[in-house]
Amino acid sequence: MTEIIVVGACNIDQIVYTPRLPDAGETVLGTDYQIGFGGKGANQCVAASKLGANVALISKVGDDDNGKRYIQNLKRCGVDTSNVLITDASCTGVAPITVANDGSNNIVVFSGANMLLSREDIDSAAGIMKSAKILLCQLEIDKFTTLHSLKAAKNAGVTTLLNIAPAIEDLSDEFFINSDIICLNETEASALTGIEVVDATTAVSAANQLLSKGTSNCIITLGKDGSVAAQENGEVYIVHGDKVDAKDTTGAGDAFIGAFAYFFCKLGSSNYMEAMKRANTVAGISVTKKGTQSSYPMRTDLPEALFEGIVN
Amino acid sequence: MTEIIVVGACNIDQIVYTPRLPDAGETVLGTDYQIGFGGKGANQCVAASKLGANVALISKVGDDDNGKRYIQNLKRCGVDTSNVLITDASCTGVAPITVANDGSNNIVVFSGANMLLSREDIDSAAGIMKSAKILLCQLEIDKFTTLHSLKAAKNAGVTTLLNIAPAIEDLSDEFFINSDIICLNETEASALTGIEVVDATTAVSAANQLLSKGTSNCIITLGKDGSVAAQENGEVYIVHGDKVDAKDTTGAGDAFIGAFAYFFCKLGSSNYMEAMKRANTVAGISVTKKGTQSSYPMRTDLPEALFEGIVN
Repeated sequence: MTEIIVVGACNIDQIVYTPRLPDAGETVLGTDYQIGFGGKGANQCVAASKLGANVALISKVGDDDNGKRYIQNLKRCGVDTSNVLITDASCTGVAPITVANDGSNNIVVFSGANMLLSREDIDSAAGIMKSAKILLCQLEIDKFTTLHSLKAAKNAGVTTLLNIAPAIEDLSDEFFINSDIICLNETEASALTGIEVVDATTAVSAANQLLSKGTSNCIITLGKDGSVAAQENGEVYIVHGDKVDAKDTTGAGDAFIGAFAYFFCKLGSSNYMEAMKRANTVAGISVTKKGTQSSYPMRTDLPEALFEGIVN
Repeated sequence: MTEIIVVGACNIDQIVYTPRLPDAGETVLGTDYQIGFGGKGANQCVAASKLGANVALISKVGDDDNGKRYIQNLKRCGVDTSNVLITDASCTGVAPITVANDGSNNIVVFSGANMLLSREDIDSAAGIMKSAKILLCQLEIDKFTTLHSLKAAKNAGVTTLLNIAPAIEDLSDEFFINSDIICLNETEASALTGIEVVDATTAVSAANQLLSKGTSNCIITLGKDGSVAAQENGEVYIVHGDKVDAKDTTGAGDAFIGAFAYFFCKLGSSNYMEAMKRANTVAGISVTKKGTQSSYPMRTDLPEALFEGIVN
């Protein structure tokens, strides 16, 4: 029985390492090349699945090697892929990433098949809404499909979480009204509110401003400084970051959201802050390992105390 | 019977189109994504093969989807792939290319498996030297493997052509001594000689300087302006460019070299200038179509006059 539904993107990260970022007109010799599984939707899905949740992904890939490889990867991670659709009208999403020796990077995302996931595709997958407790969306697919998913889930009585990433500044209030929870990082919160979010205090101000758009709960993640939440009832939570030896923070936000969804399902919606705290610990552990999805911990990798009160 | 041997690189070009080139730290949304077959060695090989030559490629790819796809492509183009080796020690070479709306671009090349083509691999392929008339090398693989190939071919009585691309400024004279012909473009010639090559006159000066390093023939290509050749016997050839409606000049230099090798084989070494002239026409036609290898013409696409004096 599906507990968590994710509607979002699958991208193949194509990471090339170079001595420096190339200028216009320049050819630079790369020193290494790695292929990774990315896309915020798929990342969040895998993070929740590795902890042991029953997770289904609704997504679209191309009819190509990358698409086949991605579906295999999701299956290996225990994700229900029956709603990962295949199209021959575009290629699987790709994200060519250049990482220079000094750590600077740039990223291009070509969404491809992801953009072809339609409202009709969501309607066809509606059966899995029945048992689900939470639905996660991000903004890497067609935004009308995202909005349609949020509405469909709300109608089915499923809690909706929208991860406002990447930040779209003129996002209509409908997205907020149809999201029980919104979650975003400090950069995205700054872009959306105009408040320079640099610590818990400024994050709470930004969160309160976003609540006024019609959502009931707003979580802002602050990287190594933890996260804050504000609720429409006036409650504010501040979770301090765990001290960790960070090796690779790529995808840490997605680890947080996937883990939050897992703990939200397992502990119940009344334990919202506890879910945030535990998700924060999981995200902290994920940054101590290199990689994105591969850095997300399995339940067996984690202290049993994190699962207190969770039977299965 | 192999007429032309190419020792060089196979790269998968991964071309993403964007509104502008991303700055450091920036994520840009791509508008299109194309996969292409590249690598100067493979390009030259395919150009000659499409004209109808018997061509063998000595190269190395990874044990991955890109490698399998590349070998299929070569076979489809009629290339003998029995010496395209597969290694699991690295991935197939890739070239992530970003092309912005204003036409500016940048390129990263990760050579991967190409760099693992060894001198031993060349020795193992020595059998095909027997029937060959010309061997082509470039500088996209381990340079000691390139030098070893040139020496092996010379010992076997095969004419050697070295395409000095990309330009390596401190290339030892051994490379010149073991190359019957060197070929490079105006930018590469400028880098190697310090002479600013902007027209036929400056190209001839640069070519004469390069002859002094020990090669017998030097060809410098000048894009739309054609090409020049200087020989150790003092002869100089100037071939004017054909007027064409250029759509995509990517890989035009490789089309020239592949076609030159074809005409050199078919017309005999005494018709050197005629081979240059006809190769120039083939390269000119290749730039009127988009794509790299896919823009190279088949014999049937070309006026029969180009094949005067060639029986098969």
